[in-house]
Amino acid sequence: MRIILFGSTGTIGRAVGAALTAANHEVIGVSRKAGPHRVDMEDRVSLEAFFARVGAFDAVACSAGDVDAAPLDQITAGQWTHSFAAKVMGQINLVHAALPHIADRGSFTLISGVLTDERIHAGVIGTTVNHAIEGFVKSAAAELSRGIRINCISPTVLVESPAIHPYFPGYQPVPAARVAQAYLRAISNPLNGRVLKLHETDA
Amino acid sequence: MRIILFGSTGTIGRAVGAALTAANHEVIGVSRKAGPHRVDMEDRVSLEAFFARVGAFDAVACSAGDVDAAPLDQITAGQWTHSFAAKVMGQINLVHAALPHIADRGSFTLISGVLTDERIHAGVIGTTVNHAIEGFVKSAAAELSRGIRINCISPTVLVESPAIHPYFPGYQPVPAARVAQAYLRAISNPLNGRVLKLHETDA
Repeated sequence: MRIILFGSTGTIGRAVGAALTAANHEVIGVSRKAGPHRVDMEDRVSLEAFFARVGAFDAVACSAGDVDAAPLDQITAGQWTHSFAAKVMGQINLVHAALPHIADRGSFTLISGVLTDERIHAGVIGTTVNHAIEGFVKSAAAELSRGIRINCISPTVLVESPAIHPYFPGYQPVPAARVAQAYLRAISNPLNGRVLKLHETDA
Repeated sequence: MRIILFGSTGTIGRAVGAALTAANHEVIGVSRKAGPHRVDMEDRVSLEAFFARVGAFDAVACSAGDVDAAPLDQITAGQWTHSFAAKVMGQINLVHAALPHIADRGSFTLISGVLTDERIHAGVIGTTVNHAIEGFVKSAAAELSRGIRINCISPTVLVESPAIHPYFPGYQPVPAARVAQAYLRAISNPLNGRVLKLHETDA
């Protein structure tokens, strides 16, 4: 398959690129600030221009999306605006922009995270934003046509990001390579409207 | 209790006001366009000014929040922006603005809706937005102090809104008065981080 990968220079993105390449897929890496394909996911017009010129593709995967952290009583309007724009609308924009161009039976794979289901201190924005993404994935899955699918990967804190570990006490870090296998699973199997969780759950 | 009710002139809001009054609570109705207290929930500064002048209160309830409907492949950027601003950020704004003023052991009761869990045609925005609200409620519940609680009411299509019924084929309408009892239940009992659903569920 020919797969467009947003966030390809990040820790997860590099692992996803490696896993997809190892599975004999062609990966077109897209990043905001580096490499040959620079696209701002917050700008729907820039996304539409990219998809109009990139040529035929079978799948879009995204591992990009920045979110702020702050205690509930200190969250600013700007932190809400930035986080919704970066992680929620960025990913929704890329689905809208890619939809007219993606191949029949193609797939979208977006990213949420452990904060949907679990609480950490100062995690309110992360939880709210992740819920929105998973809601979008579940409802979009019910409306997509031409056999196109959409799924979501919910990673937890990464082994490769030790600076973040203190904010997730007791959470079991996972290697980015394991998260990348979830992307490969979502892209390669007939899953639709699913959230693949890399973390422990209550159930 | 002295309860601030946002969206007090709507179909659910009027029923909530009646139910709370019947339970011997004092209700201060707030609306965007009518009545003595006019506040734009999308404007955090206007909300902060209102809460600074309204005097002591024990609870905030909200039944306001407009959302657009459109098929996935026709949703505009403006529809996303409007719906997130009106239903998600409006309600988050009111929690932020009220938090410094609400009484110890006070409560917030927000509104989501059946589209969190169920699909209708052209319901992608509604599902996404409702997920965000419920995520906010669940995570905020874990961070609130002073015994303050936050819950969410998830109504379904109302008996009183027959013009909407064709968009919800097979969904069982409920009377606004029954939705209002869920608000009374959330406000009056030691619930926190809960989503009270007025509709049938899979489980």
